[in-house]
Amino acid sequence: MKSTKNFFQLLSILFLVFLPIITLANSPAREATQKVGHSDPVAPVILGLIIILFTAKIGGELFEKMNQPAVLGELVFGIIIGNLALLSGGFLNFGHLFDNASIDILARLGVMILLFQVGLESNIKDLMKVGISSVIVAVVGVVAPMILGYFVCAYLIPEAGFNTHIFIGATLTATSVGITARVLKDLGKLKTPEAKIILGAAVVDDILGLIILSIVSGIIISGSISVGAIAYITFTSFAFLIISIIVGLKAAPIIGKKVSGMKVEGMKIVTAFLFLFTMAYVADMMGLATIVGAFAAGLVLDDVSFVNKKEHHIEVLVKPLYCVFVPIFFVLMGIQVKLDVFLNPKIIAIALAITAASILGKQLCGLGVRCKNASKLVVGIGMISRGEVGLIFVGVGRELGVIDNSFFGAIVIMVILTTLVTPPLLKWSIARNDKKLGLYGTENQEVTA
Amino acid sequence: MKSTKNFFQLLSILFLVFLPIITLANSPAREATQKVGHSDPVAPVILGLIIILFTAKIGGELFEKMNQPAVLGELVFGIIIGNLALLSGGFLNFGHLFDNASIDILARLGVMILLFQVGLESNIKDLMKVGISSVIVAVVGVVAPMILGYFVCAYLIPEAGFNTHIFIGATLTATSVGITARVLKDLGKLKTPEAKIILGAAVVDDILGLIILSIVSGIIISGSISVGAIAYITFTSFAFLIISIIVGLKAAPIIGKKVSGMKVEGMKIVTAFLFLFTMAYVADMMGLATIVGAFAAGLVLDDVSFVNKKEHHIEVLVKPLYCVFVPIFFVLMGIQVKLDVFLNPKIIAIALAITAASILGKQLCGLGVRCKNASKLVVGIGMISRGEVGLIFVGVGRELGVIDNSFFGAIVIMVILTTLVTPPLLKWSIARNDKKLGLYGTENQEVTA
Repeated sequence: MKSTKNFFQLLSILFLVFLPIITLANSPAREATQKVGHSDPVAPVILGLIIILFTAKIGGELFEKMNQPAVLGELVFGIIIGNLALLSGGFLNFGHLFDNASIDILARLGVMILLFQVGLESNIKDLMKVGISSVIVAVVGVVAPMILGYFVCAYLIPEAGFNTHIFIGATLTATSVGITARVLKDLGKLKTPEAKIILGAAVVDDILGLIILSIVSGIIISGSISVGAIAYITFTSFAFLIISIIVGLKAAPIIGKKVSGMKVEGMKIVTAFLFLFTMAYVADMMGLATIVGAFAAGLVLDDVSFVNKKEHHIEVLVKPLYCVFVPIFFVLMGIQVKLDVFLNPKIIAIALAITAASILGKQLCGLGVRCKNASKLVVGIGMISRGEVGLIFVGVGRELGVIDNSFFGAIVIMVILTTLVTPPLLKWSIARNDKKLGLYGTENQEVTA
Repeated sequence: MKSTKNFFQLLSILFLVFLPIITLANSPAREATQKVGHSDPVAPVILGLIIILFTAKIGGELFEKMNQPAVLGELVFGIIIGNLALLSGGFLNFGHLFDNASIDILARLGVMILLFQVGLESNIKDLMKVGISSVIVAVVGVVAPMILGYFVCAYLIPEAGFNTHIFIGATLTATSVGITARVLKDLGKLKTPEAKIILGAAVVDDILGLIILSIVSGIIISGSISVGAIAYITFTSFAFLIISIIVGLKAAPIIGKKVSGMKVEGMKIVTAFLFLFTMAYVADMMGLATIVGAFAAGLVLDDVSFVNKKEHHIEVLVKPLYCVFVPIFFVLMGIQVKLDVFLNPKIIAIALAITAASILGKQLCGLGVRCKNASKLVVGIGMISRGEVGLIFVGVGRELGVIDNSFFGAIVIMVILTTLVTPPLLKWSIARNDKKLGLYGTENQEVTA
């Protein structure tokens, strides 16, 4: 009880500091000052970041107190902030603050740092052990939702035509590993076989999803698709991961040793970021998502690479950047959810049907699990969430003219619902699995021991 | 010798990795991939950051090996990168990569983190002790260069008129504390009385400079200036610092205690950043530079505020963000220096004259030093550099129509020269002073003891 009271005391103190700032943000006093003085272009970015980080920590703390993952609190509080204009009848409106290219870039750096950190905490050898399971899970998880999605659309909206049906099916394929990875990290479950299968499958899944998107886009653009283009995309995607891991594993210790001999401060963290950025950029050049490169960079890099022991462990150095940047991504995803698309009942029907298709489709993934001690249910649920990758897909469909505003809304709802159900379902399935294995309360024991 | 060999081996390895990336950046393969796949808008930002961070660390390491501050290496290598098109006869040109709003924002966040860190390492009580010296140094350092600059311009370019003469005088006033602070930090001299006088004076100096800019702008816009506007700017500037320090000192321990009781991870670093951003934003709202707010935030915040001892010390948490972001600011300052303005001899003459005026003007500062054990020479030299504040001033003058392209070039050269001479002169004057005080080699003794 005392901690709850303290929490609300803190809330009120922070709001007392916080509200005058927002109120003053566009006051005449500010305009007057700007005329005679100067205003830094960083100011609107800072104001956006103040609101985002404040929202993230209040939301995260509240959900952690309810034994929910912090990331869900960041998302839900993001949705509230993003729809304040709607919820307050236009009284409160600072949506324009988040329509900022630099805040978008900071969020994208955030999701890259998240995947880099996940990669740092993963181990290639362990990932190899569950490799076959990951590939089967990924293939089933891409094929099943696509076919289900196609038939659901063909039944509900026959008038939209084949191109739209197949494209909506394609948008259901790619798992967004960000949220699952964050929940697994929050629960301290990144070392479990389920986590390794999911993370491995999500990487393969992103590559497969991209190949499908390329093929479907190709069919829509040209009416036919060249075998050469399909072969090129397929080849570069697989080649990137295999080559980057092999080359990275050879290069990381050499670079680490060289860097450790240098005098200038901060070499370790800057080298890690150069590694992360380079891998992400190479991935993007090959048409893959930057987060695939970020994950590969984290996978390859290891603290052992750095001989210099004067500086902190690489994970300690990355942590503060993680804490500041990752919440920006999740709060911004929440902010971008516009609740007013839910007002149309037809969109809700299509949205619910494709959400069901995408959830059911990923549940078939579980059948691909080949490890005896890995839970099929946890893996299936871990693959549900569609996040930034789904939204990127929808953007392409819109540009191609096969996704109109109503289908756009429906797919966005699917992305939101799959994103929102994943953390609680994943938490529930892991707790159920732990109970079954007799591991219930292991984490608390570790803390109190 | 061995370390130099290792360094060049590293250089060649890194270039082997680095050059193909740049070459591929705009290749037809990339365009083909983008047509069928998708490209992340973060990609050009990442490429810019790869080049900037790489440049920063190569430049920093090379200058540290020559016993020069790393920051000078970052600036000089930044100038080289920024003028590669000119130096290579148009063969190498990736200037467009750095003309990116998000990279500019990251650099501005970098200079804020720098001043925040400097604030964290400073102590209010120590700063108070040298308070009177700081105020006198600041006043002399603002008045003297302005008068000297006015007379130099009235003599050299009488045809430009009073408004231009007085405005160029005004652009010579504000010290850019960033470079001096960085050099003092690199040399481990932040605790000396000279450092405290310079940092204190730079804060007062920024406020005074802004008041002068406001007054001069007011005269130019209206032909007259209202006493009310001058009073408003003066009052808010001083009030901000005094109130923020008093309120901050009271609030920091309360917020720190509250935050330490929260469960969600990363509260310490996020709270520190919320503090930093809020103070910087409030400063900007009052028409002050965001870095003044950042410095005040660091001054007020203290690790003692956080009761939670599980997390690392606040300076350890800020360090990785410092290492990644601060070099972006200095490399980008170097990149923005366009060497071709030096081609016009008339600009060089004006530039050299106002550079001399600005250096001589700040040397009179030393006379304001009231501490017996503080070197007048070190303080005078520490106040020389004009950086981002000077450039902001020039921007305002251009908008007002009193600074044309040639004067713009001359002032930019003044900013460059004062920025470039400060680190070596400061290093020399500190070494000279240490020798005089018999402190020579103290730092090495500490390391080997």
